[in-house]
Amino acid sequence: MPRINDNYLKLEAGYLFPEIGRRVAAFAESNPEAKLIKLGIGDVTEPLPEACRTAMIRAVNALGKRDSFHGYGPEQGYAWLREAIAENDFAARGCDIDASEIFVSDGSKCDSGNILDILAAGTANRFAVCDPVYPVYVDTNVMAGNTGEAAGGRYAGLVYLPMTAANSFTPAIPDAPVDVVYLCYPNNPTGAVASRETLTQWVDWAKANNTLILFDAAYHAFITDPDIPHSIYEIPGARDCAIEFRSFSKNAGFTGTRCALTVVPKGLTGKDADGNDVALHGLWNRRQSTKFNGVSYIVQRGAEAVYSEEGKAQVAELIAFYLENARLIREALTACGMEVHGGVNAPYVWIKTPAGVSSWDFFDTLINECHVVGTPGSGFGAAGEGYFRISAFNSRENVEEAMKRIAKLKA
Amino acid sequence: MPRINDNYLKLEAGYLFPEIGRRVAAFAESNPEAKLIKLGIGDVTEPLPEACRTAMIRAVNALGKRDSFHGYGPEQGYAWLREAIAENDFAARGCDIDASEIFVSDGSKCDSGNILDILAAGTANRFAVCDPVYPVYVDTNVMAGNTGEAAGGRYAGLVYLPMTAANSFTPAIPDAPVDVVYLCYPNNPTGAVASRETLTQWVDWAKANNTLILFDAAYHAFITDPDIPHSIYEIPGARDCAIEFRSFSKNAGFTGTRCALTVVPKGLTGKDADGNDVALHGLWNRRQSTKFNGVSYIVQRGAEAVYSEEGKAQVAELIAFYLENARLIREALTACGMEVHGGVNAPYVWIKTPAGVSSWDFFDTLINECHVVGTPGSGFGAAGEGYFRISAFNSRENVEEAMKRIAKLKA
Repeated sequence: MPRINDNYLKLEAGYLFPEIGRRVAAFAESNPEAKLIKLGIGDVTEPLPEACRTAMIRAVNALGKRDSFHGYGPEQGYAWLREAIAENDFAARGCDIDASEIFVSDGSKCDSGNILDILAAGTANRFAVCDPVYPVYVDTNVMAGNTGEAAGGRYAGLVYLPMTAANSFTPAIPDAPVDVVYLCYPNNPTGAVASRETLTQWVDWAKANNTLILFDAAYHAFITDPDIPHSIYEIPGARDCAIEFRSFSKNAGFTGTRCALTVVPKGLTGKDADGNDVALHGLWNRRQSTKFNGVSYIVQRGAEAVYSEEGKAQVAELIAFYLENARLIREALTACGMEVHGGVNAPYVWIKTPAGVSSWDFFDTLINECHVVGTPGSGFGAAGEGYFRISAFNSRENVEEAMKRIAKLKA
Repeated sequence: MPRINDNYLKLEAGYLFPEIGRRVAAFAESNPEAKLIKLGIGDVTEPLPEACRTAMIRAVNALGKRDSFHGYGPEQGYAWLREAIAENDFAARGCDIDASEIFVSDGSKCDSGNILDILAAGTANRFAVCDPVYPVYVDTNVMAGNTGEAAGGRYAGLVYLPMTAANSFTPAIPDAPVDVVYLCYPNNPTGAVASRETLTQWVDWAKANNTLILFDAAYHAFITDPDIPHSIYEIPGARDCAIEFRSFSKNAGFTGTRCALTVVPKGLTGKDADGNDVALHGLWNRRQSTKFNGVSYIVQRGAEAVYSEEGKAQVAELIAFYLENARLIREALTACGMEVHGGVNAPYVWIKTPAGVSSWDFFDTLINECHVVGTPGSGFGAAGEGYFRISAFNSRENVEEAMKRIAKLKA
């Protein structure tokens, strides 16, 4: 009889978003006439850029002719896409990242989970996460057996770094040894950003302590402040201590189209059981070659078009659109007397729940009274209790209508 | 300092296909004028069916309008695709598989590796594989820590089931207890098929011994003999002991487009550490929800079109085309006096290397003398030594030319 992976049984009642989905479905069933506005899951709503669509249609047509047909592509992604990424995302910002260090994938969620495959499981590594945090970092560690049991919304064995108004959403660098730390900037869920100084402190500490930084830059496109780094590799020394995850989901609206990338610099190493240095690049390459078969040719052509002149202009428009939504949300909720964070250089607004109600109670109030769906802060971790995430990913009309409804709630 | 997953260091010198790629690249560099014909990697060469292309272009256009835009889809795949699969792949063949038991993914390679995530790693489970075997089954077990070190092309801890001419490529059912067994029919690499009687013996044995069958049906579309099952679920009792992997790669030519599926019946269970039954469906659903974000909407629409009337007719044409290639290969190599297996109900022809030369020596002879690339049998396992795989995936012109060249080699 097959033995299951018992670590799965440690997982708490369910990934946050399915739980929201269940409550929304229950509400919709009881209130079939209500016009729900969803500012919950961070999913884009606006049409895919024309440049990407044109490129994908051309790619589909190419697959219709024997001479331009494409079967299996390189598991790491096509060279033309990796080179476009290296040039535009990295070289253009002064980062020394070679195309061969870029692995194209079907999602940052996948990569940030799968990266654990190449690291020792169990108690060999000590992992740190911010709190609140994107739940996938935590859940994948639980599934890999890197934690103990959960209690009070936290898993034994993980180091949690609180990220609250009290520390201006800048978590303290751990004073105990940590082997791997996850950082996400612009931050999901708080919308906080990291200054060059903050990131430099992390990199210097990581280098001094041989810590691996897993840097999630999924929301980098929302940075408008020229002083804020888009990539960890803008910080000297980061090549020696950091892996970076990026995605086409939130800049070009690829949440349903699926393309992302992970950067593993060639000099980056871990230790084997005998204390020898082993390059992480080779391990990740082996992992991807063996357990992955590359991203759809069609989708890679669409991603490449993000770097064309038209693509860049169209992505800039999308970003400006969502950032204006964020500004409207900030303004409206501030006018309601709420304590509002984030939403600048980031698509997420992070509010303190009014009158100290719990995150899930505020969720229920908002859906029942305003027919607006948001995300309870406690779903992102214990330190998220008493906070609530509002996403700027929606139409202008829906954002304005949602803000009107919430204003009435406060009146 | 992060500790790496030491199991990766046990992997033998490289996944088979990258090694072939290296030798081919070296040959091409030394012989820039040679016209190489590749009958090695099992990659399709013919244009994508028109029905799929039309559906994908429609899907790309839909993403260009706000009202028909699609962001994140269900991690398990869209209901319309799961239902089309349930109806056409299963109900139509008398299999009792519900749409909710079907998980759409981006590849069978991914799924057959990732399935190990939900099973206990280390020595808790005993895994059996056929020999020769698709290398991914073995390598992913090594990476997960389910084996010891390699010696003589075999890893300690795995049970190998030889599959050679001596047993008519029908491996004996293990007499020792096994928790999980991988079966692939029509078989990669040997091109062998399993009769209803053979599969019934496996299912009866699996049920009697509480063994989980991981059934890879990637090549089912090549079955023309009406007596040979396409799915393990055509065998009574298979719902209680088998997971099945399927793919759009080899029927509809999706190797570069990427879509596959895995069936996990709801009643299927494994044991936890306390001996309780745990449903594998729930575990796989949690794995996919947490570490995967669904297949591109565009690609899922393309896969759905495989089940339209036009799509079925176009796929049938593709299959007939490659099967005719296989017939030509069988005929030509038999005429050369070679011992030829497979290539009927399967796209792979499996030959005994002439005069007992080793698989890799025959590879070198074939590339150097005929400028034809095949796949050394030993790359699939120790029992594949002395065999060689020729793939029927190529144009008619290339297949005919390759056979002419090989005929000269023998003369």
